[in-house]
Amino acid sequence: MRTMAQVRQALSSLSGFPEWLPAGHIVEQHFVDILRRTFELHGFSGIQTRAVEPLSELTKKGETSKEVYLLSRLQADPADAESETDPRKQLGLHFDLTVPFARYVVDNAGLLTFPFKRYQIQKVWRGERPQEGRFREFIQADIDIVGDGTLPLHHDVEVPLIMHEALSALPVPAVTIHVSNRKVAQGFYQSIGIDTDRLIEVLRVVDKLDKIGPEKVAAELTQSVGISAQQAAQALRLATITGTDGQDVSDEVLRALAGAEPTELLNEGLAELTALLEATGRRRPGAVIADLKIARGLDYYTGTVYESFMAGHEDLGSVCSGGRYDSLATNGKRTFPGVGISIGLSRLLARVIGEGLVEVSRSVPTAVLVAVTDEAHRCASDAIADALRARGISADVAPSAAKFGKQIKAADKRSIPFVWFPGGDGAPDSVKDIRSGEQVEADAATWQPPTADAAPRITVSPAAACSPAGGQDGCEVDSAS
Amino acid sequence: MRTMAQVRQALSSLSGFPEWLPAGHIVEQHFVDILRRTFELHGFSGIQTRAVEPLSELTKKGETSKEVYLLSRLQADPADAESETDPRKQLGLHFDLTVPFARYVVDNAGLLTFPFKRYQIQKVWRGERPQEGRFREFIQADIDIVGDGTLPLHHDVEVPLIMHEALSALPVPAVTIHVSNRKVAQGFYQSIGIDTDRLIEVLRVVDKLDKIGPEKVAAELTQSVGISAQQAAQALRLATITGTDGQDVSDEVLRALAGAEPTELLNEGLAELTALLEATGRRRPGAVIADLKIARGLDYYTGTVYESFMAGHEDLGSVCSGGRYDSLATNGKRTFPGVGISIGLSRLLARVIGEGLVEVSRSVPTAVLVAVTDEAHRCASDAIADALRARGISADVAPSAAKFGKQIKAADKRSIPFVWFPGGDGAPDSVKDIRSGEQVEADAATWQPPTADAAPRITVSPAAACSPAGGQDGCEVDSAS
Repeated sequence: MRTMAQVRQALSSLSGFPEWLPAGHIVEQHFVDILRRTFELHGFSGIQTRAVEPLSELTKKGETSKEVYLLSRLQADPADAESETDPRKQLGLHFDLTVPFARYVVDNAGLLTFPFKRYQIQKVWRGERPQEGRFREFIQADIDIVGDGTLPLHHDVEVPLIMHEALSALPVPAVTIHVSNRKVAQGFYQSIGIDTDRLIEVLRVVDKLDKIGPEKVAAELTQSVGISAQQAAQALRLATITGTDGQDVSDEVLRALAGAEPTELLNEGLAELTALLEATGRRRPGAVIADLKIARGLDYYTGTVYESFMAGHEDLGSVCSGGRYDSLATNGKRTFPGVGISIGLSRLLARVIGEGLVEVSRSVPTAVLVAVTDEAHRCASDAIADALRARGISADVAPSAAKFGKQIKAADKRSIPFVWFPGGDGAPDSVKDIRSGEQVEADAATWQPPTADAAPRITVSPAAACSPAGGQDGCEVDSAS
Repeated sequence: MRTMAQVRQALSSLSGFPEWLPAGHIVEQHFVDILRRTFELHGFSGIQTRAVEPLSELTKKGETSKEVYLLSRLQADPADAESETDPRKQLGLHFDLTVPFARYVVDNAGLLTFPFKRYQIQKVWRGERPQEGRFREFIQADIDIVGDGTLPLHHDVEVPLIMHEALSALPVPAVTIHVSNRKVAQGFYQSIGIDTDRLIEVLRVVDKLDKIGPEKVAAELTQSVGISAQQAAQALRLATITGTDGQDVSDEVLRALAGAEPTELLNEGLAELTALLEATGRRRPGAVIADLKIARGLDYYTGTVYESFMAGHEDLGSVCSGGRYDSLATNGKRTFPGVGISIGLSRLLARVIGEGLVEVSRSVPTAVLVAVTDEAHRCASDAIADALRARGISADVAPSAAKFGKQIKAADKRSIPFVWFPGGDGAPDSVKDIRSGEQVEADAATWQPPTADAAPRITVSPAAACSPAGGQDGCEVDSAS
């Protein structure tokens, strides 16, 4: 079993743009395969959107504009120069998959069937200063459901449960999905008399609670946003409410009003949150917990919001986030409300690979290296390899007809488990398990490797499974598909 | 069976940046899966490189600089402004996968095992004016083998054979790989007395033969490049030589010298080309043909070069190209010679999808839509769907508890073959094949759909199979993996 130590060294020669060695890529591909399989089992269609969007599309909802990478052509025609200052023509790399998806839905509304369920696993780019766990280029894996005009609440239930199922199938510590509802927060602030035009600002400041702590949040709420100390204290009290029982959570929120009358928006939010908790608790107990400090920075969320934390790795922040957006996708006439959730896959992988939480049995797909007796007989080795491949066994042929000891070493260096020796002159072929040294006669038309050796195996490393940071809960040994 | 007509409408709202509808993405994913499987069967490791490279890296070999998209940050710090004019710091999107791979090999040389075989399926970008079949963003699928210091010729044989095997597994017309050797062309020009400093220029002009025809090539060779009319005629004669027998091809090249003495480089090139043709002809007859007009525009090729043409679709140009590059990957001290070949996957897909050469049985992964009796019993339908998914059957639950007729219509609109009706109150469940109308009792714990209905099926459309453009040769019906 090969540890990932070697892999960890190889992040990137360009800060913020991670790259994996082949063993790391096997882990990444394994994660992607599991996500894809889970999403497809639930009837989600895969799509890819182009990497670029007009700047006007990317900055439509404000706030994120500072993160955008703009494109220009190294040798642009002078005629194109003016288009580069027109935000409808100026192109930028997408910084998430939700904004491009909303645009895709509007572009293709007449050709899609609603509700439309899609998954999308793609790179995104953000021109931020890179820091630990923050990349400038990274893979996101998103699922979203959009309706035409309306979208029932049961989809707000479906989305986190599917993501939780997918995350539970990965060889990572247990993940819990935390939910809140924008309507609860906004309705609560309304109820205690905070002006409507300050709501978004309050949400943004409260969202920093985990980062800067309650004192600084309170100070910022009173000093910068300008709400009263009592209102700030109530907002902070709301933010401390957590629980899995919808009725209990709802009761606590109402108590935190300290006698103020709940607005219609608050009641609507509490009804949604309670229904969500009831359904998720029944279908997947322990997967979802209410956590009313969750607000999400992005402007486009209008109801349920999600964040997710990995046991023992809470310092990583949310590994998987999203929410309900009722008015992001619109062409003016029709609106397509949506709900979705997104894994920051590269960040999760950087932690899993960087801390050696998983091991991979070899860094190549190859199960068998076919030895070459001499260059004149390379064709015999090629024929053996082709016979193995025809039955789905990954095989490579030794690069040179060196002494067999050297050829075995070449296999061992790549952790290829088997070396095949052509017989020739009527003698039978033989195959050697280079781990045990056992060598047996074999026929390339019928021999099979043990199932466990067919493909590189990804396992939770023993160290990770025993450490407090490891996942005794959700982190079972998992084999490559 | 759903034709791809609907899919064809949906290229993109931004010229040169293609996007597929879900049915088109199923075809794309099917192609990617087949390529990946073939490459892994041959022991190639998957990697991904970052999308960006320093401009100095991208323009190292010149010529392609006009195609590069540069990046800038929308709100860059003034401190960063100077770095944006330094080509070692200025970033651009990669325009192929060979240059980034060479950089990756040099970056990680100490951590890789040589010869290193890798495949890479990724998007690339070129800031060209878009035209039919030319995109600004497209997917390439590459395989390459690099050695440390040396790389034997048998890898020049291996690479086109693997790609031919992969292309033959795709539901597309037969592809033939055309090969030549830079040493043959350069050695031939040397032998007939063309100056060394004009060789690259001659190669470039001859490369346009298919586009502009022999008269214009001859005129350009004599007038712009400045070689004699006889030299131009000989260069054109070389370019017409094709064949699958190495000895015949070699003899014809020597005859075209018209008495001139072959240089060492020409003899070396002919020996390589002959050995290549002998091995490919034996291992995969008909896959590879010598075609001495192939030159490839890029400067980094030093020996064998490949282009490939699809039967009936020669107008598309080469669908798959590459060659040997002995000095692209170097850190000054060590050099890593390589050989590789690359499919322009998006261009191939645009033709296959655009001309309706394939059909896909449905646009969603879903095999079963579970009906909902009423919203109060949605949980029963969720449980049925979960039981099906647990056994690998893709299932979705009806979005609303409409009348059953309407729910069946919702399945039909997506070409989902089965609708499941929960029994309830002790009555058994039943499942209806909505194509035949047949409905039978069923248990979600044991029922299986026919294998052919488990996943969307991709087939060669009957029209394509019968038309002259279709592939009676290599274009068999293929089912989704």
